[in-house]
Amino acid sequence: MQPKHAHHELPPRSWSRDRCFGCGAANPSGLQLKFVLSPGGRSYLCEFELSAQFGGPPGHAHGGIIATILDEAMGKANKLKGKIALTRRMEVDYLRPVPLGQPLVAEGRISRVRGRTLYNRAELRSAKGVVLASSRGKFLTIDAEKMFARELAEERKQSG
Amino acid sequence: MQPKHAHHELPPRSWSRDRCFGCGAANPSGLQLKFVLSPGGRSYLCEFELSAQFGGPPGHAHGGIIATILDEAMGKANKLKGKIALTRRMEVDYLRPVPLGQPLVAEGRISRVRGRTLYNRAELRSAKGVVLASSRGKFLTIDAEKMFARELAEERKQSG
Repeated sequence: MQPKHAHHELPPRSWSRDRCFGCGAANPSGLQLKFVLSPGGRSYLCEFELSAQFGGPPGHAHGGIIATILDEAMGKANKLKGKIALTRRMEVDYLRPVPLGQPLVAEGRISRVRGRTLYNRAELRSAKGVVLASSRGKFLTIDAEKMFARELAEERKQSG
Repeated sequence: MQPKHAHHELPPRSWSRDRCFGCGAANPSGLQLKFVLSPGGRSYLCEFELSAQFGGPPGHAHGGIIATILDEAMGKANKLKGKIALTRRMEVDYLRPVPLGQPLVAEGRISRVRGRTLYNRAELRSAKGVVLASSRGKFLTIDAEKMFARELAEERKQSG
């Protein structure tokens, strides 16, 4: 399961950090989720609405988009321990269809830490607090500068 | 026994398929995945590359996009039984980082059927056949015309 770079081509030129599909402000096709630390400081919260481009079933969000939001919420939670980590495993429970164009809340938190592994949870709720989907995730801490050295060097060359 | 080819059992036009984030040809922000029945007729296959807008870690796909592709592959597999079904639960194993801008293959199949519940599996592989991520999903058959009656009526009104 060790992540490996088996490929040798350069990544697409236009990649950059603020173009992250989940939270990049410079990605017009992405979700542009903005998470903030919750008042108690034990989770990350995001309030948002989904536009029509993220649909699956009529009038509702694609299951993969729901997974993306939960993955993003759990990933943000890693910052509570100052970690950068990659998803190793994720389980999503789809409890109710998630409507497009209505206020939603995502919240991610850390459940448990074992060495370099973080076990996180997240929820996607309606504005009234009804849980629409929930997730559990296993995250592995990485040294991003080492693991993605080639891609990061490429990005710096482009932006410098 | 001949596997059942379910091309004639596609969901109705009004299912918003062409705007679906995963497979809609009319959604420029979506993945536009095109699945075809595999030669043996026991799975659905899709060959594609991910553009930069779907990134997460430097040069690689967002974990949520990987989940979306696997969800889409498993969802397509429901057509092997002529079913329309919604994801009730999904588990994703992230085995290796998934590169942007390189040829990939997704394959979804049905593992088991119990009444209106389908248990499906999917894989995301490199062109060389290395499994980068895999998933298991539980899908519940729905009557889309009934469940999304309001949205479908609205859509028909809009399209004339």
